[in-house]
Amino acid sequence: MNNESKIAQNLAEPSSQMEPSNSDEKWMLRALEEAWKGRGLTSPNPAVGAVVVKGEIELGAGYHHRAGLPHAEREAIADVVSKHGCEALHGATIYVTLEPCSTTGKTPACTSGILENRISRVVYGAVDPNPEHAGAADSLLCEQGVEVTAGVLREQCEKVLRPFAKRISSGLPWVIAKTAMSLDGRITRPPSEGQWLTSPESREIVHQLRAQVDAIIVGGKTVRRDNPRLTLRSEKSVGKKEQPWRVVLTHAGRESLPQDFHLFTDEYKNRTLIYQDKPLAEVLRDLADKGCNSVLLECGGHLMRQFAEAELIDEYQLFYAPIITGGQDFGFGLGNHFKSSLTLKEVRSTSIGQDTLISGVVVR
Amino acid sequence: MNNESKIAQNLAEPSSQMEPSNSDEKWMLRALEEAWKGRGLTSPNPAVGAVVVKGEIELGAGYHHRAGLPHAEREAIADVVSKHGCEALHGATIYVTLEPCSTTGKTPACTSGILENRISRVVYGAVDPNPEHAGAADSLLCEQGVEVTAGVLREQCEKVLRPFAKRISSGLPWVIAKTAMSLDGRITRPPSEGQWLTSPESREIVHQLRAQVDAIIVGGKTVRRDNPRLTLRSEKSVGKKEQPWRVVLTHAGRESLPQDFHLFTDEYKNRTLIYQDKPLAEVLRDLADKGCNSVLLECGGHLMRQFAEAELIDEYQLFYAPIITGGQDFGFGLGNHFKSSLTLKEVRSTSIGQDTLISGVVVR
Repeated sequence: MNNESKIAQNLAEPSSQMEPSNSDEKWMLRALEEAWKGRGLTSPNPAVGAVVVKGEIELGAGYHHRAGLPHAEREAIADVVSKHGCEALHGATIYVTLEPCSTTGKTPACTSGILENRISRVVYGAVDPNPEHAGAADSLLCEQGVEVTAGVLREQCEKVLRPFAKRISSGLPWVIAKTAMSLDGRITRPPSEGQWLTSPESREIVHQLRAQVDAIIVGGKTVRRDNPRLTLRSEKSVGKKEQPWRVVLTHAGRESLPQDFHLFTDEYKNRTLIYQDKPLAEVLRDLADKGCNSVLLECGGHLMRQFAEAELIDEYQLFYAPIITGGQDFGFGLGNHFKSSLTLKEVRSTSIGQDTLISGVVVR
Repeated sequence: MNNESKIAQNLAEPSSQMEPSNSDEKWMLRALEEAWKGRGLTSPNPAVGAVVVKGEIELGAGYHHRAGLPHAEREAIADVVSKHGCEALHGATIYVTLEPCSTTGKTPACTSGILENRISRVVYGAVDPNPEHAGAADSLLCEQGVEVTAGVLREQCEKVLRPFAKRISSGLPWVIAKTAMSLDGRITRPPSEGQWLTSPESREIVHQLRAQVDAIIVGGKTVRRDNPRLTLRSEKSVGKKEQPWRVVLTHAGRESLPQDFHLFTDEYKNRTLIYQDKPLAEVLRDLADKGCNSVLLECGGHLMRQFAEAELIDEYQLFYAPIITGGQDFGFGLGNHFKSSLTLKEVRSTSIGQDTLISGVVVR
């Protein structure tokens, strides 16, 4: 397996891994493939994919690219029209990972698009996480004679929606904690050695993680020590995505941070946010209010521990370098036992060069 | 991949993983397959495998089962004789993972067996690690008209010999450190939770590790807390192998350990050794002198750190459970950075149920 597919696997793309057990599942997997293309690009909207099928032949497909642009259904419909003309849509089935929207927002309701184009069957995976809209499409479409099948590969469809669903349901973003540790859980090397614990391949994956989120959080100490850029450097993301917010949490305030550092001087300086002494949950809530569906923690052990202990983290992406360093700086800081252990599910371990990436989602 | 083959893979059996590039390599891989069967059973002798081939057909194979029993070459020769008669050996080639012995010990020299049976070609992998014997077989056999090819898959053959070679070359055993940690490097759970971090599958692998070694080392604290048995419970090892020494390192002496504990009362009580305040290297030297080729550390963080920092560990087998616990008990204790990081090579990561096993060998 090459690094590319390892990344896809580790970033929890389900479509590449399961065998469909019937035709609906087969086409929903295709819709999921489309949906994952939008991951990290669509906030505050969800990543959604759609595919239009007639007689077991794919007529067109699409995904939601970015807030303000057409929804996945509209993209797929446009794809069919450009390839086969409007007529092709009559009597077709559309597979969508998320229940089609039935209200007009920045773009017209997708249910209207489906009806106007005389699509005869709608198959969707996840129900709209917004309780006000959940299930609204079903009756609206059924009344007009469109057959609706809901809940196909629901669980997989909910995975790609998680960041959006988390924000909608809790007012907090989906929080991914990334840290690179030695095998003994440390994050620094002895003074005579270089800064990096992990391999260039692992650091490339970190850049791909950044491309999935709307904000990156670090502590003031990390900024003072590393003068980080926190920019998107992965080929896959440059130019496709707005620079995520660069969020610095500090006790000492903005003045304590060198003003000539990258975060304050580079072309993205208006994407740097400083929070002084704000409770972590409030920081996250504020970021959600700014439209962030997901956030990446790239902070040191002390701050990481606070986020973990407060159960504010949803997903862990932990890189282990094949070294043992001793030392005082732990990936999850020092302190007493948590009240209870955090347990991960959907655990995956992947060799990335000489490093090991262990990832998983917190069991609530 | 099932757990069985995962274990084989993680315990560094090379034969299952490489493609031979010629006939000699192909048969040496077969000999290696035989050699690995003896791993952990042969101390103070090395694990060695052999296969007898004529016209690209395998006539017989064997491995060294236990000190005092025939060497691998003799086992393979006997296998051929029982299946095809003595005549079959004339003009055959024998593949052996280690240079055949040319001196008479508890059993007669293997070179004699080769000559007596008119085997016409010897192919071996690793040179005898004992400098007094290294290469001695070559001239002895060549003089008698036997063709000798040395060094085929040398590196792989040396891997299975490592414990023996370490003891012969340094007077110390091959030391394997095993520990089970949370993802944040801790070895205990919060008080309200159970004792185990890792899954039953991982604990089964620990039993298979025990079956590879001649001694298991723990600290007095571990004994007092857990009253461990440190016995062989894997189906594969019970009855095939003597109980490894159970070694307790303590500052407080034997009297500090409850005398009704398993280590002092069970059927293997004569296989329990206590060392009080002895320097770690001296403990290891003493075990090597007792014939131990390899030793497994199953100790807590404080002692593990001392072994690691003193560079006495050769191989790490680290289990990571998918939990984050906080807490004060680290797999590699507390303290300052090591003078320099320990770096592992031959790193493998394997999913064992929900756990991840990361293993590797220390780069010297």
